[in-house]
Amino acid sequence: MSKSTEIASLGEFGLIDRLTKGLGRRNASTLHGAGDDAAVIDLGDRVMLLTTDMLTEGIDFDLSYFPLKHLGYKSVVRGVNDILAMNGKPEQLVVSLGVSAKISVEALDTLYEGMETAAKELGVDIVGGDTTASMNGLVINISAVGFARKEDVVYRAGAHEHDLICITSNLGAAYMGLHLLEREKRVLKDIDNPEPKFEGYEYLLERYLKPRARVNVLDALREEGIRPTAMIDLSDGLASDLRQLCRSSQCGARIYLERIPIARQTSELAEEMHIDPVIAALNGGEDHELLFTVPLDKQEAVMRLGLVDVIGHITKEESGVILVTPDGEGIALKAQAFDR
Amino acid sequence: MSKSTEIASLGEFGLIDRLTKGLGRRNASTLHGAGDDAAVIDLGDRVMLLTTDMLTEGIDFDLSYFPLKHLGYKSVVRGVNDILAMNGKPEQLVVSLGVSAKISVEALDTLYEGMETAAKELGVDIVGGDTTASMNGLVINISAVGFARKEDVVYRAGAHEHDLICITSNLGAAYMGLHLLEREKRVLKDIDNPEPKFEGYEYLLERYLKPRARVNVLDALREEGIRPTAMIDLSDGLASDLRQLCRSSQCGARIYLERIPIARQTSELAEEMHIDPVIAALNGGEDHELLFTVPLDKQEAVMRLGLVDVIGHITKEESGVILVTPDGEGIALKAQAFDR
Repeated sequence: MSKSTEIASLGEFGLIDRLTKGLGRRNASTLHGAGDDAAVIDLGDRVMLLTTDMLTEGIDFDLSYFPLKHLGYKSVVRGVNDILAMNGKPEQLVVSLGVSAKISVEALDTLYEGMETAAKELGVDIVGGDTTASMNGLVINISAVGFARKEDVVYRAGAHEHDLICITSNLGAAYMGLHLLEREKRVLKDIDNPEPKFEGYEYLLERYLKPRARVNVLDALREEGIRPTAMIDLSDGLASDLRQLCRSSQCGARIYLERIPIARQTSELAEEMHIDPVIAALNGGEDHELLFTVPLDKQEAVMRLGLVDVIGHITKEESGVILVTPDGEGIALKAQAFDR
Repeated sequence: MSKSTEIASLGEFGLIDRLTKGLGRRNASTLHGAGDDAAVIDLGDRVMLLTTDMLTEGIDFDLSYFPLKHLGYKSVVRGVNDILAMNGKPEQLVVSLGVSAKISVEALDTLYEGMETAAKELGVDIVGGDTTASMNGLVINISAVGFARKEDVVYRAGAHEHDLICITSNLGAAYMGLHLLEREKRVLKDIDNPEPKFEGYEYLLERYLKPRARVNVLDALREEGIRPTAMIDLSDGLASDLRQLCRSSQCGARIYLERIPIARQTSELAEEMHIDPVIAALNGGEDHELLFTVPLDKQEAVMRLGLVDVIGHITKEESGVILVTPDGEGIALKAQAFDR
């Protein structure tokens, strides 16, 4: 009898490490495989970046409140973000859809409309796809391709002690947007003509339903001649993604609670729903912002951009990944929760 | 009220045409989008081929009889085949998995083992992946990347009148293998310690569960200096895929019933199960062989390879796509069925 292991028991980084451990490398063009936001393929004069991202109904989205147009838009932003997080220029993507019987052609039109809107905004081309049936729910997979000069690629593994830790916008808003949508769905479950109450929280909905890719920040960094030393897409939440970056870079980090930007709407709804806004910011996930590090001497130049917040700095690995509270206490960050 | 259209009502080519119709092209590197087995991206000195393929549980595979190792193997072969069908050299692929709660880590190990076995045989590297949860059933998406000289790429659209129509192996075997597995599942449904009867039909199971990529045929063609004029992966069945190739090439075709290779095991099981073996060969699908055309003057050279069957030739578009029976009668091929 073979022993069966639940996936959750492997923890945060265990599964992907385990699955990709034994994979061989047969082509000289394969520069870098699993372990970053995208794979890196050598083209000689430059590199190609390749990434894949799957969304499944009931886990990653709920069609009862997620408009298909937004879902199309978001799925493209997610795919493109993985290319941006490697400092690449996204150019093409291919779409696979698993389509359940309840989905009409018009629904797919709307989904594609949203995907094309994002593609247009981000300057990428949808170059093909595959559509298959699905017994249970909609599945969307986006594989995106981008290009970069070899020396411009930014990995998770490039952070050094004293580097500054930057993020591209406030955190936790998407998480609270999701909570709001879930609450209204619960409250209005058995009501005819339900009218969900979203007033005052539109920003949170937008952050969850229609995240923006931060192309402008990368452009601005490039113009200023600032190359991040390490970068990661903030999809799992600041705590998890920062730990991931530190693990790859074999370093530690200190971030400061009062420097973590949290939008007013995020704090207000969190209070209303008895959720700690700091938890939303640290562990909420789906922010789809960029977390990156720059050398200490770029502090002034980075601040001058007015586009990023510096929330802390990189330390030695043995110092761990620490959140510093306003009273100076240091708390070790865990992946899914942190203890006060 | 918007009218809702069922996807099936759009017919064979309708859906993908409709969804990809309005897509823009923003990058000069986008040479060729939807409508072939892979997209074609210009790299200057050569091109990159990019493809995506999704498999969903309950539609594309049944885990009650599909061993996970074979499933991994087959999913890689399918992805790689789309690159081969463009005459490209497959080099990398990325894997997305939607994993339901019933799947253990050991099951994923086995799936990856099968994928890596195929990757090794085909000389490709698995360079990354994404794993998400799935509410209902396993979903596998493979995106494959290959390379080719621009002038070597073979599209569906290159066939000309008088070209010969070639296939790389016998047809209908995978379809009968699937029928055999389904039959044994039905028969043994309520039996303890079921012992399915597969003797004499092992070849059919292998064709369904572990299809082979025909790298050797493409290598042989290259060595002989024969470049196919058009090519397509035989996944939907000969009738549908030949019609697709003819539609892209704006031509017709005549194929000859007695030249369509059907394996002995395929005929025997078809007879036993009261299925017309010709229907299995024409419409069964999942053969994962290559269908390609070569100029008429390559007939002798192609036959000499001993690796392909010539089943007919290309005609003018207005002649239609015709199956010629042994008594000389011509029958117009439909996508999903043909009328005697």
